[in-house]
Amino acid sequence: MTVINSIEDLRVLARRRLPRALFDYIDRGSYDELTWARNRADLRALQLRQRVMVDVSKLDTATTVLGDRWGFPLALAPTGLMGLFYREGEIQAARAAQAAGIPFCLSTMSICPLEDVRAAFGGILWFQLYVMRDRGFNDALIARAQSAGCRALVVTLDLPLQALRRRDPKNGLAVPPRLTWASARDFVRRPGWVWGVLRSRHRTFGNLATFFPRKGTAALSEWMGSQLGPLTPGDLAWVRDRWPGKLVLKGILDAEDAKLAVATGADAVIVSNHGGRQLDGATSTIAALPRVVDAVQGRCEVLMDGGVGSGQDVLKALALGARGCLTGKAFLYGVASRGQAGVALALDIMRREFEISMALSGSGRAVDVGPANLVQTT
Amino acid sequence: MTVINSIEDLRVLARRRLPRALFDYIDRGSYDELTWARNRADLRALQLRQRVMVDVSKLDTATTVLGDRWGFPLALAPTGLMGLFYREGEIQAARAAQAAGIPFCLSTMSICPLEDVRAAFGGILWFQLYVMRDRGFNDALIARAQSAGCRALVVTLDLPLQALRRRDPKNGLAVPPRLTWASARDFVRRPGWVWGVLRSRHRTFGNLATFFPRKGTAALSEWMGSQLGPLTPGDLAWVRDRWPGKLVLKGILDAEDAKLAVATGADAVIVSNHGGRQLDGATSTIAALPRVVDAVQGRCEVLMDGGVGSGQDVLKALALGARGCLTGKAFLYGVASRGQAGVALALDIMRREFEISMALSGSGRAVDVGPANLVQTT
Amino acid sequence: MTVINSIEDLRVLARRRLPRALFDYIDRGSYDELTWARNRADLRALQLRQRVMVDVSKLDTATTVLGDRWGFPLALAPTGLMGLFYREGEIQAARAAQAAGIPFCLSTMSICPLEDVRAAFGGILWFQLYVMRDRGFNDALIARAQSAGCRALVVTLDLPLQALRRRDPKNGLAVPPRLTWASARDFVRRPGWVWGVLRSRHRTFGNLATFFPRKGTAALSEWMGSQLGPLTPGDLAWVRDRWPGKLVLKGILDAEDAKLAVATGADAVIVSNHGGRQLDGATSTIAALPRVVDAVQGRCEVLMDGGVGSGQDVLKALALGARGCLTGKAFLYGVASRGQAGVALALDIMRREFEISMALSGSGRAVDVGPANLVQTT
Amino acid sequence: MTVINSIEDLRVLARRRLPRALFDYIDRGSYDELTWARNRADLRALQLRQRVMVDVSKLDTATTVLGDRWGFPLALAPTGLMGLFYREGEIQAARAAQAAGIPFCLSTMSICPLEDVRAAFGGILWFQLYVMRDRGFNDALIARAQSAGCRALVVTLDLPLQALRRRDPKNGLAVPPRLTWASARDFVRRPGWVWGVLRSRHRTFGNLATFFPRKGTAALSEWMGSQLGPLTPGDLAWVRDRWPGKLVLKGILDAEDAKLAVATGADAVIVSNHGGRQLDGATSTIAALPRVVDAVQGRCEVLMDGGVGSGQDVLKALALGARGCLTGKAFLYGVASRGQAGVALALDIMRREFEISMALSGSGRAVDVGPANLVQTT
Repeated sequence: MTVINSIEDLRVLARRRLPRALFDYIDRGSYDELTWARNRADLRALQLRQRVMVDVSKLDTATTVLGDRWGFPLALAPTGLMGLFYREGEIQAARAAQAAGIPFCLSTMSICPLEDVRAAFGGILWFQLYVMRDRGFNDALIARAQSAGCRALVVTLDLPLQALRRRDPKNGLAVPPRLTWASARDFVRRPGWVWGVLRSRHRTFGNLATFFPRKGTAALSEWMGSQLGPLTPGDLAWVRDRWPGKLVLKGILDAEDAKLAVATGADAVIVSNHGGRQLDGATSTIAALPRVVDAVQGRCEVLMDGGVGSGQDVLKALALGARGCLTGKAFLYGVASRGQAGVALALDIMRREFEISMALSGSGRAVDVGPANLVQTT
Repeated sequence: MTVINSIEDLRVLARRRLPRALFDYIDRGSYDELTWARNRADLRALQLRQRVMVDVSKLDTATTVLGDRWGFPLALAPTGLMGLFYREGEIQAARAAQAAGIPFCLSTMSICPLEDVRAAFGGILWFQLYVMRDRGFNDALIARAQSAGCRALVVTLDLPLQALRRRDPKNGLAVPPRLTWASARDFVRRPGWVWGVLRSRHRTFGNLATFFPRKGTAALSEWMGSQLGPLTPGDLAWVRDRWPGKLVLKGILDAEDAKLAVATGADAVIVSNHGGRQLDGATSTIAALPRVVDAVQGRCEVLMDGGVGSGQDVLKALALGARGCLTGKAFLYGVASRGQAGVALALDIMRREFEISMALSGSGRAVDVGPANLVQTT
Repeated sequence: MTVINSIEDLRVLARRRLPRALFDYIDRGSYDELTWARNRADLRALQLRQRVMVDVSKLDTATTVLGDRWGFPLALAPTGLMGLFYREGEIQAARAAQAAGIPFCLSTMSICPLEDVRAAFGGILWFQLYVMRDRGFNDALIARAQSAGCRALVVTLDLPLQALRRRDPKNGLAVPPRLTWASARDFVRRPGWVWGVLRSRHRTFGNLATFFPRKGTAALSEWMGSQLGPLTPGDLAWVRDRWPGKLVLKGILDAEDAKLAVATGADAVIVSNHGGRQLDGATSTIAALPRVVDAVQGRCEVLMDGGVGSGQDVLKALALGARGCLTGKAFLYGVASRGQAGVALALDIMRREFEISMALSGSGRAVDVGPANLVQTT
Repeated sequence: MTVINSIEDLRVLARRRLPRALFDYIDRGSYDELTWARNRADLRALQLRQRVMVDVSKLDTATTVLGDRWGFPLALAPTGLMGLFYREGEIQAARAAQAAGIPFCLSTMSICPLEDVRAAFGGILWFQLYVMRDRGFNDALIARAQSAGCRALVVTLDLPLQALRRRDPKNGLAVPPRLTWASARDFVRRPGWVWGVLRSRHRTFGNLATFFPRKGTAALSEWMGSQLGPLTPGDLAWVRDRWPGKLVLKGILDAEDAKLAVATGADAVIVSNHGGRQLDGATSTIAALPRVVDAVQGRCEVLMDGGVGSGQDVLKALALGARGCLTGKAFLYGVASRGQAGVALALDIMRREFEISMALSGSGRAVDVGPANLVQTT
């Protein structure tokens, strides 16, 4: 492929380069993938308002989120295993984010540890935390995030227990991984990926290493299972007390939860259904967004992820009240195919799509996008 | 297939192991299969509400139906011919139901006779009755059900005459069966199934054996045709007088019929369209459910079957007012592929899907599921 | 195909036996076939009400239309060229209609002439008239219909000029037919059909023969083109004066036209869009039916055609106020595949589907079918 | 293909004859092609009202737009590169338009220069202007349009910057064109097209030639990029002052913009989303049309383009208040496959479809088409 000009192009490249188990892990949703499909379909169905005779000669995609200036209203969502998709994947993605002037959010379940990522780039770093039952673990990670100067702590709420992506067990994607003849054959056909992994410094969950220096993956898996659980407002108050910076709650899809988030002292919420990877049957994020915006009444900022695969999607979310979006799959296709350059390409494609669509729907500046950019179809 | 983690996986296995005539019998609906498809599509279209920050650390899928405790709000629906899908199929399924703590409902048209099934397992047994014009037949079966300690008598109402599954005659599935070169070839390719049938003690309708000890299948077919007919409230009063236990009316899809059922003294109704196998063009069961719930006003319990193929589907039915569901196809794929182990697998998959989806939509206990688990889309 | 139990089965047989030009002529609609597809889709989307506990032990599919008793609320629609699909096709179809106790409507553009059809069967005969500019032609045909004892004259209104079925010219179907290498090859592969045609007594439009004894098809085509035109209420008054029997207006799809039809003295209207073969983009007949029923206020009977391909379709039309249906394609597949036996099979399939669906939706008798057989989805 | 009777047939021919880069340029939309698909889908979903018993014996497809009589309510939309699709493509198309009695609108980005087109045909000529930042350029083109006796100046508003058709860069379609092995191979397979281009007098943008006599395409591309920009009402006032004839504003899809257009002194607006080639996600033109008609309140004429691919589509636009339509793709398939004869064929197909559909929906004359030709589906 000589010309790459859509996220779908990057997806095709990622499918070629990655072992199937990892590609499917990125690409798919839980159970029947109803919510996974709905996220995209509902975004696509929204209609933008075409405006002309508006002076959009000066275009500005920048915005301000949680006090930071972003070059474009999109951040890189926290996702696990990234360092297995490309050598030092988290660092590659973080550098591309910095170049685009947008935040990179590191996952608890990253391969590269927090400190290595921090040392490798100078941009806006967020840290995503799975709050575990072991308070010592949480304390330690929060302290590390603070030392690393993370601009926000993102607490994921929608994983009290883990839903099933049906392909993962079939592909042998588990902790520890199950190697089969099929996956071995798969590896042989992906020498580029194998060579990249062999050269990586990290091949397991880097942030957990201090907790499991020698225990092995089986113990890890067991520990993880026992540590996940629902987070109550009390748990979040505990986090709020320990984290002095910006607190972002991820996984809000309901007006009730949005109000609870505000009451907890969240600085922002992320309207999310975990990319269609948790509750299958849940509503799409773009459908839930207006209800959440309405519920928080401006008392905190609202971000959105889930199905965001083009600049037009970002525009639609902003038009419905989001301050910005996060994207997972779109940039992971980039990191999986070409590392930093792939992420840069993904961001460039989406930023340009956003810019052009913003202008053609009548807004010169990202901060001016609002309900007037959408066709009212009631 | 080394990893089986969906009902669809079991369906694929069943298609491999069963002769086509039997697989199609399980799998398909009547005529153009509009209702058969609508059952599933309407369930899939419902949107669950994602909730977070709710304390769902203690999960309990148990519920109480007709005074009995169920481990999970799902029962095995009555289905004919099960003993032809796997050696002693009814017994295999019943044992799996017992292990899961849920009822097994035996069909009048079962292969294993009622007494054998009763002797083989200790769980909750229900008996489904086709009320025939021959009152002696009904009397005898009701007496047998009582002797067997059946916890409920399920009277099927939606088969006053028999609709057509178009593939059955093409496949030679009739009474007596029509053996063709095609079906013979089909058998040769399924030695596992053939061997299972050869080892079975029963190969015809076990509950009817006392009525047709030597008459042969042609006489049976003729007799059946002459015995089916509509059931009036008077017929049901006759049954109600004879059956002291719980009476369940199956095939209610309309508010008028629901009110009649209550007036008849039914303890529960099953919202059903016979799995899309009778009136093609009928509404889906999940669409009819709220109307039935509204009509009975709590005067009897409401169950539902039709298109229930995942734990999420069970959750949606409960959210709309059902006390529990029954499933036919889903567990038949299990029994057809692996006997008791296959049913256990089907139940385990659905129970786990239910549990996770229940928790992610904000309920720790099955008995707390209600309208609040659904997105209100009006 | 050893078992034939749906109209689709007959369609497959017809496709095998007929030259492609003729099969496409039967099978397809005009232009983009939007209306052709909508006719079927709208019928399929309607939802029947499932009723139980209703005494439907005595089933009666008979009804009365225009004073005649029909064995089943379905008549054979007038269609051109039938005698080319099967040897003496019109006679074959008429005899099957008589056996089923329903009317056969002969088209002006039939191959067998009216008098031959009349002589060959004793059932209810209707005659369809294209009113031409040449009043003598109309006079003559009306007189012949009267001599033949036709029970109704059906005047087609929706062909003031002829829309295009795009495949017809591509297939060489024209007057005179265009024989190409492709069609010649096609004929060689259909010896059964060729042999049937060779043995037929008639191979051109039988009713026009007295008008064009020797002129040839080119003159016929030219004459036809010059004779078609819109029919005004005045034209219909002229017909009404000449025809003492029942007058049926075919092609009413609009409430305004329905009122005009009543004012003209029509005894019945047929809600029709010429089977999706004229105005592409027109509404479906089942969607138009309630508007027409409402407009005529019982002052004439309402029939419907268009997309009627199953007994359930007939039931749905009756539930929305039609007194009966006509079918074209469904019985033409039958006549094209097996002559009289094929039509008998088509009628038997649809009658049995109607009977079962009627009973399962709560009506024992066709004359009792009404809005209560449908789910009210408002 | 011996019989061509739909625009789709011409599309197939064009795909065979044109290099892929040019065919895709004609055929496709921007980004995910949501708006491109919506244009057609929304037109197809509209339902026409079938009327009978209306006197439509005299059919007249003519109408009057901006004071000129059109033989049919359709004009040829301005499109770039036409002269590369067929030798002297613009002249071929213009002559076919004249023969059909409808306007031809030449694009700024045409291959044949304005004066050559004017010299080659005597019909109604419109000129489409991209207003550039270089006022001298605009002045010069406006003067040339005036000298050529253009009946209207069409100013395109919806291209302040250029959206992406993703296939164009992949196909090497750029300024200057990028020749690859793939495109070279493609040319070898299209000798008819190559031969046509070799014989053409013009192979680059003819109207820009006086501006770029020797500078080459790279300079042209750079200049174009720097010249595009949003047009404000002030810019349009500037054009209005210089152009004494009819002024048409193209790219109005919103009621606000429609009012601005009226205020600017436009004689007509074209409801357009650039054929789904600019703002992907924009509403369809047929959905926007009634809002625009309502906004202008008769103070200017309203035309529409976008997805118009049949005579029925033209009819639907007129029924919703358009005075006429423009078509791009439909006639470009014609010019690309057969030059003037191909355009004549496209126009003949659409005119005949319009005429028949108009008559069958109750109107004898194009000028009588209105809301009464559509089914009101509230």
